[in-house]
Amino acid sequence: MKNNYLRLCAIQEKIYNLNHARCILNWDQATTMSVYGNNARSQSLAEISSSIHELITAKKIKKLIDSSQTEDLNELELANLREIKNEWLMTHALPKKLIAAGHLSQLKCEFEWRKQREKNDWKGFLKNFKNVVKHSREEAKILSNTLGISPYDALIQRYDPGLKSKEIDKLFVQIKNWLPKITSQICEKQKKIKLVKIRKNLDIKTQKNLCMEIIKLLGFDFDRGRLDESIHPFCGGVKEDIRITTRFNKNRFLHSLFASIHETGHARYEQNLPRVLYNQPVSKARSMSIHESQSLFFEKQIGCNPSFIRRISPIIKRYFDFDPELDQVDFFSLINSVQPSYIRVDADEVTYPAHIIVRYEIEKNLINGSIEPEDIPSLWDEKMIEYLDISTKGNYKDGVLQDIHWPGGQFGYFPCYTLGAIYAAQWFHFASQEIENIDQVIFSGDLEIIFEWLNKNIWSNGSKYETPDLTKKACKGEILDVKYFRNHIENRYFM
Amino acid sequence: MKNNYLRLCAIQEKIYNLNHARCILNWDQATTMSVYGNNARSQSLAEISSSIHELITAKKIKKLIDSSQTEDLNELELANLREIKNEWLMTHALPKKLIAAGHLSQLKCEFEWRKQREKNDWKGFLKNFKNVVKHSREEAKILSNTLGISPYDALIQRYDPGLKSKEIDKLFVQIKNWLPKITSQICEKQKKIKLVKIRKNLDIKTQKNLCMEIIKLLGFDFDRGRLDESIHPFCGGVKEDIRITTRFNKNRFLHSLFASIHETGHARYEQNLPRVLYNQPVSKARSMSIHESQSLFFEKQIGCNPSFIRRISPIIKRYFDFDPELDQVDFFSLINSVQPSYIRVDADEVTYPAHIIVRYEIEKNLINGSIEPEDIPSLWDEKMIEYLDISTKGNYKDGVLQDIHWPGGQFGYFPCYTLGAIYAAQWFHFASQEIENIDQVIFSGDLEIIFEWLNKNIWSNGSKYETPDLTKKACKGEILDVKYFRNHIENRYFM
Repeated sequence: MKNNYLRLCAIQEKIYNLNHARCILNWDQATTMSVYGNNARSQSLAEISSSIHELITAKKIKKLIDSSQTEDLNELELANLREIKNEWLMTHALPKKLIAAGHLSQLKCEFEWRKQREKNDWKGFLKNFKNVVKHSREEAKILSNTLGISPYDALIQRYDPGLKSKEIDKLFVQIKNWLPKITSQICEKQKKIKLVKIRKNLDIKTQKNLCMEIIKLLGFDFDRGRLDESIHPFCGGVKEDIRITTRFNKNRFLHSLFASIHETGHARYEQNLPRVLYNQPVSKARSMSIHESQSLFFEKQIGCNPSFIRRISPIIKRYFDFDPELDQVDFFSLINSVQPSYIRVDADEVTYPAHIIVRYEIEKNLINGSIEPEDIPSLWDEKMIEYLDISTKGNYKDGVLQDIHWPGGQFGYFPCYTLGAIYAAQWFHFASQEIENIDQVIFSGDLEIIFEWLNKNIWSNGSKYETPDLTKKACKGEILDVKYFRNHIENRYFM
Repeated sequence: MKNNYLRLCAIQEKIYNLNHARCILNWDQATTMSVYGNNARSQSLAEISSSIHELITAKKIKKLIDSSQTEDLNELELANLREIKNEWLMTHALPKKLIAAGHLSQLKCEFEWRKQREKNDWKGFLKNFKNVVKHSREEAKILSNTLGISPYDALIQRYDPGLKSKEIDKLFVQIKNWLPKITSQICEKQKKIKLVKIRKNLDIKTQKNLCMEIIKLLGFDFDRGRLDESIHPFCGGVKEDIRITTRFNKNRFLHSLFASIHETGHARYEQNLPRVLYNQPVSKARSMSIHESQSLFFEKQIGCNPSFIRRISPIIKRYFDFDPELDQVDFFSLINSVQPSYIRVDADEVTYPAHIIVRYEIEKNLINGSIEPEDIPSLWDEKMIEYLDISTKGNYKDGVLQDIHWPGGQFGYFPCYTLGAIYAAQWFHFASQEIENIDQVIFSGDLEIIFEWLNKNIWSNGSKYETPDLTKKACKGEILDVKYFRNHIENRYFM
């Protein structure tokens, strides 16, 4: 007998079907929607979110969860119940009014941020942002009480269930130890290489065709997804119809290409989530850190790998009509060039963690209440100087105002990027141990055996295992360890 | 005090917001969705439809409607209440199970029809179609009891509230009287014109640009809508972001152009519906007949008008790089050529009503139970011979299998097309009386004064007035009259 559990599943099915609408509407908003379509769209999204919230937090749910615990459930069903319970814990305690007010403050802050950023207007931004912080702190406090963890840790649960800032601290402290020195060593080494840039432009349509050819090579399934254009590259839609986007710029085709490769990592994870209990929480992606580990595996471990670059260079040259100029181009050095810079999304993989640590240290203290929004710019400048030796004093535009996450209230997300990079390096290490001559496999262009490793160890597990278990199963008992990331950096840039 | 009424309005707002999702998901399904995205999409659409159905038919609604009747409502609010009540009447009596079973039988029939049509497979189609008819008859019977009208009339209410088949009969009998003779007279006359066809192809992108230029001339607002491509042209999306589609074929640019013009009529109606009570039923388009009257006003009254064709001919020639061949083309005769044919959607405006009358006479008897699905092909053939003098014996593909409406269970829709054509001619007649030298206005390309007439008399009224009142207000007290349509035909083809 598992009637209570099955009733929970039926509710989850409804949530899944409503969430489908939300995902497609969000994708449409970012790619297709008309200029004046936003008001009606926001109303519709709010209505659907409200319906989902009601389904998750209905009074009967607690009872159903409690009674399901003693029912006759198999391992997968128990994992599903655990995920249902987590979702309920993260939602039921938050008053609907607080969520709505928080969402409204985020919408306003985000909307005005788009212009304030261009104008370097920190003061204007601060006014709205204080409201966002206020609501996020309230939510964090309530969740902190429910879960018995710190307010910031409570927000992390939204993106990486089970993760605590104590663990992040341990990992990041190691990175901080070697990052500044390694960065300057790499920069010193790369100074000696004379970079030949590609001068010829590639029109958008040709760029799109190039992207499509390369991501097909990486297994993107165009019968279950699409590639479109948007202002910021993202992976959206639903797992049955996953929609990645990239941004095209005539003279920066490598950007659109590597953004496509990155999003393909997200897409393949979604396209290969378990088909069993497919509309239940246990079949969702495990966490945003694991999600980023897939995009970064595709982008950094495979895409920027010298063997892969050797593989795709002739393809790229074909799209440039074999322009002899390209024979002079050292694609590997061009793609893997390292340089401290202001903008996170444009940063190379070596300096990227510094950007994340700056944000992580600030947002942790901000949510836990030891600093105030006013304190951010000077802290930002201080830390950028310490980790990357560049100053952002007075330059809010290329500093605190560069990201959408904070105006959008997504506190706790940033660490996932760097955790993802560490995971990706670790997956690659353990995959290499199982796959003979992995560089040769990558050069061959037939990467199926690598995808099989990812599918077996990551994709097909969905949320069946909690993250440390998932990691241990994939990595012969080891948990996440920064050394694999450091080894990867040293191998790539010093060998 | 109008608390009950306001509670109804709040429910309608929820319905409006959920329906937004349904409309965008439907549009996406027809234009963008991936090959394997259909299953998840159908589940999501079913869930949203089910939520809407629950909102409309909740137990409290009857009480709220009854109590609202005695509240202090103004004219517009009373009209809104009337529309809310109509919607409730049309929905609450139908068991959710019957709707779901009907919908399932339609999905199956429609899905298999796509292949059966190509294979001329009437027998295969009949098997599924019987199920569709069975469910539609059941629904019609229930609604017939609720509304106290015939089963077929009950289904008409879905598309044209208030309309009865008795009125349609009166109009169609007149058309049948003169249509066969007038058709053969026009054909005889047109035989003498030697049509010069356009041999040069126009690539899809250029066709799209041409369509966009022309529909901008017709006031399509691209800040509140889009033009895309789909297999069948349609007008979808939501009124804040209306999305028309056309179908492109390299050597048939006039088809994509006139389909775009047609859909622009639908779009402008939606784009200009009232902003007051915008999310309430009273601000919806009045009916599908009135909707078709707008598309046909744009396509036939304006688009095919000799003055408009004189206006756009130079534009068309510009897209053909002023190919001298086009100087030989008589665009008016090419666009307004009349010929009895098998396919409704390709028919000219003179023979079009015959296609509708064939379908109307059959579906009326089918739903009312005096004929069975098996009887359709021979009746179809008989009527096609009688009205258009062409036989479809054994040719199901170009006969009964050509339309999606019946497999989709849309019985009662077909009359709207021809009613729309009659309305369109009548609007044009009365607009001409108020607008000095309307042909000159059309040739000038500045049609604002005509759009103002439509806006004042049709668009901005939404569903405030019932259809006969809407008509009388626009037409100096007259109700719908076929003579305007006949005059239009005679003016266009015999002058």
